[in-house]
Amino acid sequence: MRSGRSPKGAARGFIIPIGGAENRVQNPVILRRFVKLCGGSRAHIAVIPTASSLDDTGDLYESVFRDLGADRVSILPFKTRRDCESDRYLKVLDRADGVFMTGGDQVRLAEMLSDTPAAEKLHSRNAHGMHVAGTSAGASAMSAAMIAGGKSGATPRAGMVDLAPGLGLISRFVIDQHFGQRDRLGRLLTAVASIRFGVGIGLDEDTAAFIGPDEMLEVVGSGGVTIIDGSNLRNSAADSVRHDDPVGLTGIRLHILVDGNMYHLGTHCLVGGTLSARSYVPSGSNATALI
Amino acid sequence: MRSGRSPKGAARGFIIPIGGAENRVQNPVILRRFVKLCGGSRAHIAVIPTASSLDDTGDLYESVFRDLGADRVSILPFKTRRDCESDRYLKVLDRADGVFMTGGDQVRLAEMLSDTPAAEKLHSRNAHGMHVAGTSAGASAMSAAMIAGGKSGATPRAGMVDLAPGLGLISRFVIDQHFGQRDRLGRLLTAVASIRFGVGIGLDEDTAAFIGPDEMLEVVGSGGVTIIDGSNLRNSAADSVRHDDPVGLTGIRLHILVDGNMYHLGTHCLVGGTLSARSYVPSGSNATALI
Repeated sequence: MRSGRSPKGAARGFIIPIGGAENRVQNPVILRRFVKLCGGSRAHIAVIPTASSLDDTGDLYESVFRDLGADRVSILPFKTRRDCESDRYLKVLDRADGVFMTGGDQVRLAEMLSDTPAAEKLHSRNAHGMHVAGTSAGASAMSAAMIAGGKSGATPRAGMVDLAPGLGLISRFVIDQHFGQRDRLGRLLTAVASIRFGVGIGLDEDTAAFIGPDEMLEVVGSGGVTIIDGSNLRNSAADSVRHDDPVGLTGIRLHILVDGNMYHLGTHCLVGGTLSARSYVPSGSNATALI
Repeated sequence: MRSGRSPKGAARGFIIPIGGAENRVQNPVILRRFVKLCGGSRAHIAVIPTASSLDDTGDLYESVFRDLGADRVSILPFKTRRDCESDRYLKVLDRADGVFMTGGDQVRLAEMLSDTPAAEKLHSRNAHGMHVAGTSAGASAMSAAMIAGGKSGATPRAGMVDLAPGLGLISRFVIDQHFGQRDRLGRLLTAVASIRFGVGIGLDEDTAAFIGPDEMLEVVGSGGVTIIDGSNLRNSAADSVRHDDPVGLTGIRLHILVDGNMYHLGTHCLVGGTLSARSYVPSGSNATALI
């Protein structure tokens, strides 16, 4: 039995959005974990470089995954929607243990693949155990409601996020990447406000959410994962909000998760004992005197 | 009876932190509201320009408040701690209806005033009805645990915020300003994590929180006010966090409030009907198709 596969072969595969700029050489904890999940030295990994406008992105990841010990790496260079019907490529998806979608432009990726046999295969194979990882644009495209672009800033504002249909590998969640680095809280909040009972997942660079078939999310990497739980969210009446006006939102639950934290997306609870109540005091401050 | 004063004269005055860059000429909604609260055409307002390194900051606000119809404006140019013992200045504080603290450097302001007769007078007069407003640095200095400085970024990281003792006009709250404009969520989260049951108030530019004696906060201005309710916050164990590492935090309740929203800081509840459930859809997107 390969790691990550259910004994019955029926469990869904992992969904692994990555916040971009993941370490690929010196300390590639995320990609190593992905290869291990896919079977390590027996892993067959398919790379979809479609989001990227660079010709060598597929080759780059092929080399990285080989260095990490994968048995086989196939590149699926979908450049037209016809490519997404190619039997040869579909057979690769039939046999792969994991798929990796590169960064680039999530709109290009989603428009190329959506509603093609390749996308259907991604869905059905993931439902039966194939793992799907994606970095940056490849992470954004996993959502059903995909963030196609938007403005930076911490405060949610009307019209600051552009949503478009993504691949829909996960439905209730909206994913954003380069999160802490590019000041994207406002646009993720604005996106979550548009999705009933939605949850926003903001991934810092070099940081991944390994989401298992049981809806357990584990953080791997050097940054944080911001969870915006909108299940109790209330927001401004649409008719009172003009373009670029700040949007009032209340009842959001916010969590910042770091490497090793486990969070259950179904129950919205942190699992395990890695966080403790109130023991953190900022270093280099005299905060203790103020409490 | 002047507006904002209790009939018995015993109610605390308002505390009014402002996020900086408030409109002072074309549409000065915040400053106009402050003058009105202080008695309008009968208002006596004292300006403390101590945070500013510019010589004309006090004069500038004197002119603004006169234009807004205040009866009398006094400048309290505290430049040394001895100045903060001056009978002449203390008598102004005895008679003022409201005090306005300008922007500049909150450390300069807090270090100059803390534990002086002027600061004691600010506290005691506010406790008996005098209103205290402050913009930018003047807002930050209101907290007991004052944000003295820090790094930008959405993700809280160990050591990203420098806390110092502020004037302590409000105790359970930490205030940050220029909030949406300067990407300060991470540092405010980091600060809230250090204060037991603390609440963070992040003020966008040209936006104020009018906090009444009943702990009701009303938002006035063109931006948003981000409330970080840390009353159920749990966070990373300190011994596992190194400088600049992301800090795990869970159980935060987050609210974005806009002009006209009323929020009760004691019960952590939005008051009144200005927000409605789930009616906002981002303009310019096809989000409706995705829900």
